[in-house]
Amino acid sequence: MALAGGVGAGKFLRGLVRVVPPEALTVIVNTGDDIVLHGLHVSPDLDSVTYWLGGVGGRARETFRATDELRAFGAEGSWFGLGDMDLATHLFRTRLLAEGRTLSGATSTLAARFGVTAHLLPMSDDPVATHVEVSDDAGAAFDLHFQEYWVRRGGRDEVKAVRFDGIELARPAPGVVEAIEGADAVLLCPSNPIVSIDPILAVPRIGEAVAARRGRAAGVSPIVGGSPLRGMADKLLPVAGVEVSAAGVASYYAGRGLIGGWVIDGVDQGQAGRVRAMGIRVTVTDTIMVDDDAAERLARTALDTALGDQP
Amino acid sequence: MALAGGVGAGKFLRGLVRVVPPEALTVIVNTGDDIVLHGLHVSPDLDSVTYWLGGVGGRARETFRATDELRAFGAEGSWFGLGDMDLATHLFRTRLLAEGRTLSGATSTLAARFGVTAHLLPMSDDPVATHVEVSDDAGAAFDLHFQEYWVRRGGRDEVKAVRFDGIELARPAPGVVEAIEGADAVLLCPSNPIVSIDPILAVPRIGEAVAARRGRAAGVSPIVGGSPLRGMADKLLPVAGVEVSAAGVASYYAGRGLIGGWVIDGVDQGQAGRVRAMGIRVTVTDTIMVDDDAAERLARTALDTALGDQP
Repeated sequence: MALAGGVGAGKFLRGLVRVVPPEALTVIVNTGDDIVLHGLHVSPDLDSVTYWLGGVGGRARETFRATDELRAFGAEGSWFGLGDMDLATHLFRTRLLAEGRTLSGATSTLAARFGVTAHLLPMSDDPVATHVEVSDDAGAAFDLHFQEYWVRRGGRDEVKAVRFDGIELARPAPGVVEAIEGADAVLLCPSNPIVSIDPILAVPRIGEAVAARRGRAAGVSPIVGGSPLRGMADKLLPVAGVEVSAAGVASYYAGRGLIGGWVIDGVDQGQAGRVRAMGIRVTVTDTIMVDDDAAERLARTALDTALGDQP
Repeated sequence: MALAGGVGAGKFLRGLVRVVPPEALTVIVNTGDDIVLHGLHVSPDLDSVTYWLGGVGGRARETFRATDELRAFGAEGSWFGLGDMDLATHLFRTRLLAEGRTLSGATSTLAARFGVTAHLLPMSDDPVATHVEVSDDAGAAFDLHFQEYWVRRGGRDEVKAVRFDGIELARPAPGVVEAIEGADAVLLCPSNPIVSIDPILAVPRIGEAVAARRGRAAGVSPIVGGSPLRGMADKLLPVAGVEVSAAGVASYYAGRGLIGGWVIDGVDQGQAGRVRAMGIRVTVTDTIMVDDDAAERLARTALDTALGDQP
């Protein structure tokens, strides 16, 4: 099974379903980024994973005609660009939720519509919202929903702290803990540690369940050559006191007893020794997923790294 | 002021705002066709009038990518094609309603966004739903929302009766009765008498207010040469016992004391005598609105016909 954020996870998982039968794979996805826009429940990470596994990742032919109109109206929330095809997903999910389905149920229905046979689970059916505490140019502190920080304000504010609103009351979605406990291997996708993987781990019982499986758990570094392949990990890792490097992230996970293995890119092979010194198996490989073949090789390596200690 | 349905009204009103200052014009629009689709409040007639007056009538460059996706999902309600730009309107209105605005308030906000300075009012802020009772090929009777009858089933069922659910409890939207009472002229747009104009007239107090102004009220026949220019009036007029002709519709309105004047097309001039025999002023003119100039001429004629008895 795998813990996943958005696009980086989606690309990695396209490789993973070539290595293991998708029906045997459970993916637990971050929902801390979820946001209600125009009355619609938007789940960016669930959708990224669904779209990538469904073969429509990146939505190359997406258009933004509805969003353009909403912007012309001055509609609240229209700073977030929802594609026209993407809107259908949000409308469909929001209807299912309004009819009383859980987010898990809606996720599974949507995944089936995109032909995804891997089991996609939100980390929780309960609402969790990632917020960042920032200070503006004048030093005044204020609070932003993660999407406001990242999408609306382009990540320009200095982040003082990250928190997951609602996390104490959130329960793991049905099947999440069981999937971790019963998995042959637990993989941490190359997603943002602070705002993609940490919210999942912070749901009561999930972090503990992963730690209990650390001997079969491995992660793929989202940091290559000292910077993230995408996203804003370089801005957020320092907030948690984490060095922006492959070894820094390994240390961040290993320090909490979450992983037994770590996959880093060839450009970072100089850091392999530091990671091994943490008592972690390290594999050095090409982690840049230029295509599904590369993703498949990376997924196989990650799986081997997770299972390295197993007989 | 004018009573309006959808597209036919929209084209006519484009002419009318060239004849009278738009700020001085109030348009009362049918909401019996309104329907909730994908959780969104869709008001087809209000939108038609807004779009036509706003200069985007017909939405020539509209696309249906979200609807295509929803159809692929098998989403309930996706038999109704919502355009991508159009979706923005429904999302925006639905948000305004969810925030506690009335349909009048949302209509006025949307109209302003489209640069419409005429006062558009829904007939009521209360929900009214036009339903038809039909019988299928096997003779079994069942009930359909008007949009299901017309859009989903392509008007193929034999209609036994039309009713406006909720009409007894519906109150005229604020300003509606006052607009009729204070108007220089009351115009019935060339809209479907049964499912566009009748729902408006059936709202308690509105029909009575129009009848009280019949000396200044005139309509434009939606029937030209024995058939409707658009829509399904030919299927629905007989349900109300109305002859599908310019004179038939005149009789339908005049029999309820609603109009003092009636505008018919040149091809129907043979029916002018029948209408005059009802005690109604008749003007024969070209009623086909090929462009805004034609709509303007027709609107001027309708206004003159409404005011024909006035000193």
